[in-house]
Amino acid sequence: MEILRTAGEFRAWSRKTRLAGQRHGFVPTMGALHEGHASLLREAKRRADVVSLSIYVNPTQFGPSEDFQKYPRTWEADVATAEREGVDAIFAPQTLYTPDSITQVVLPGWNAVLEGEIRPGHFDGVATVVAKLFHIAECDLAVFGQKDAQQALLVRRMIRDLDLPVDLVVAPTIREEDGLAMSSRNRYLSSEDRSRSVVLSRALGASVDAWKGGETSPEKILAAGWRVLGGTPPDSVDYFTLLDPDSLAVLDARATLEGPAILVVAARYGSTRLLDNAVLGNVWA
Amino acid sequence: MEILRTAGEFRAWSRKTRLAGQRHGFVPTMGALHEGHASLLREAKRRADVVSLSIYVNPTQFGPSEDFQKYPRTWEADVATAEREGVDAIFAPQTLYTPDSITQVVLPGWNAVLEGEIRPGHFDGVATVVAKLFHIAECDLAVFGQKDAQQALLVRRMIRDLDLPVDLVVAPTIREEDGLAMSSRNRYLSSEDRSRSVVLSRALGASVDAWKGGETSPEKILAAGWRVLGGTPPDSVDYFTLLDPDSLAVLDARATLEGPAILVVAARYGSTRLLDNAVLGNVWA
Repeated sequence: MEILRTAGEFRAWSRKTRLAGQRHGFVPTMGALHEGHASLLREAKRRADVVSLSIYVNPTQFGPSEDFQKYPRTWEADVATAEREGVDAIFAPQTLYTPDSITQVVLPGWNAVLEGEIRPGHFDGVATVVAKLFHIAECDLAVFGQKDAQQALLVRRMIRDLDLPVDLVVAPTIREEDGLAMSSRNRYLSSEDRSRSVVLSRALGASVDAWKGGETSPEKILAAGWRVLGGTPPDSVDYFTLLDPDSLAVLDARATLEGPAILVVAARYGSTRLLDNAVLGNVWA
Repeated sequence: MEILRTAGEFRAWSRKTRLAGQRHGFVPTMGALHEGHASLLREAKRRADVVSLSIYVNPTQFGPSEDFQKYPRTWEADVATAEREGVDAIFAPQTLYTPDSITQVVLPGWNAVLEGEIRPGHFDGVATVVAKLFHIAECDLAVFGQKDAQQALLVRRMIRDLDLPVDLVVAPTIREEDGLAMSSRNRYLSSEDRSRSVVLSRALGASVDAWKGGETSPEKILAAGWRVLGGTPPDSVDYFTLLDPDSLAVLDARATLEGPAILVVAARYGSTRLLDNAVLGNVWA
């Protein structure tokens, strides 16, 4: 496994694989790897001949009051995970920006919805760094987790709009035994909050069950989840709602569900925000 | 010469050349080709094994009051020029946007200067379409004209900031015998305005001569040009100024010229705007 520290090294590595006719699968991460990331790496391995992993805590996607400094860095463990999963190269740059860098990739409107509204500038930072990483990697495909659903939808929209020559693969969310979606931020939960947080996946499950039972009213689908959430309420719920995966519009609660939708939840336990989601129908097709 | 009408066809053509180990030079244009474009194609030929040309009048870089509809379309003549210059493929898409496309590449601040200020949204449209074209072309190098200097600087900044794997070549401005910079818009000049417009290149020349003579005061360098402009004034002058090519800042007239600079002029004759520029020092290195 190679460890590449500069964009030039990573691109040279990628071009060598291309000349060898190998299909290159790429998994961009901020490190602090857990079983969810491992599943992305395995998905990349299944679909590509060589697999690269980037580890870069991207400062531009953190707001001024957010946890950039304290975001977990677990380099040795990450390298061990990459080795175990058969990763061919880790790209771990010191920085990806020059001080005079100004160009941004933006999705106006789209990134003002839910996470974008709560975290101003977050998705500009995500879209820009993902475009940069794709340009450096020159990969054939990239694997993202469904866990960060809005991010995955944003990357899909960006790939289509900018004609990026990358196939997007969105891999299912990996969960703890009790159902909590794996996340690098779970480690910040107190053990009491850790127990309470299982309600998020259960609420999603209740809504999905209602939908599977034939319910097509967004209002009633959501109500089934809210009843569960209300039983063990998080400190606060930022949103629990249904999104149209193509327009990113929040679905009108009074309408009738027709196409696929994504049910998304964000909740707080102390200073820790947890996200989870479930797809209703074939969102990633 | 192949004529490719879709992004998929153009990318497939480009990948074939890549597999053959050929270096691909790309010249993006809006058509209405003149001798200036022909010189870009020759520059690409000198530096690459195969040369592609795109012809696409990009709607997103025209403002609502601008000349998108009446922008010249001269398809047969353009194809003949491409044939004559030994172009290997023309990419001439019907459109490059889907109706739900929202992603933009922006250079905030930078594109509010001069042309960006006068044409709001123009450079967002340019940056976005150039990124899209680079993604589709997967070219090794791209040739732009110095004639649109701010555009060339913007593309250079974008390539650096987004790590686009494209070498930028900026080719010198081609001029009519009397010095007028070639432009698709020159055809709109009345014969009287056509004669008057020679003053633009002469004014630039007077300023360059002052600089070559050792003058390092922006104020005095500009004054030499203004004297010439004043002799045969255009209907109006939008700007005649010196720019820092790295920061795009307008140089302080009272400072001392140290590094390279670009002297830019924009003037109007009736409803036709003409741009021209001259470099002081090694701007494109």
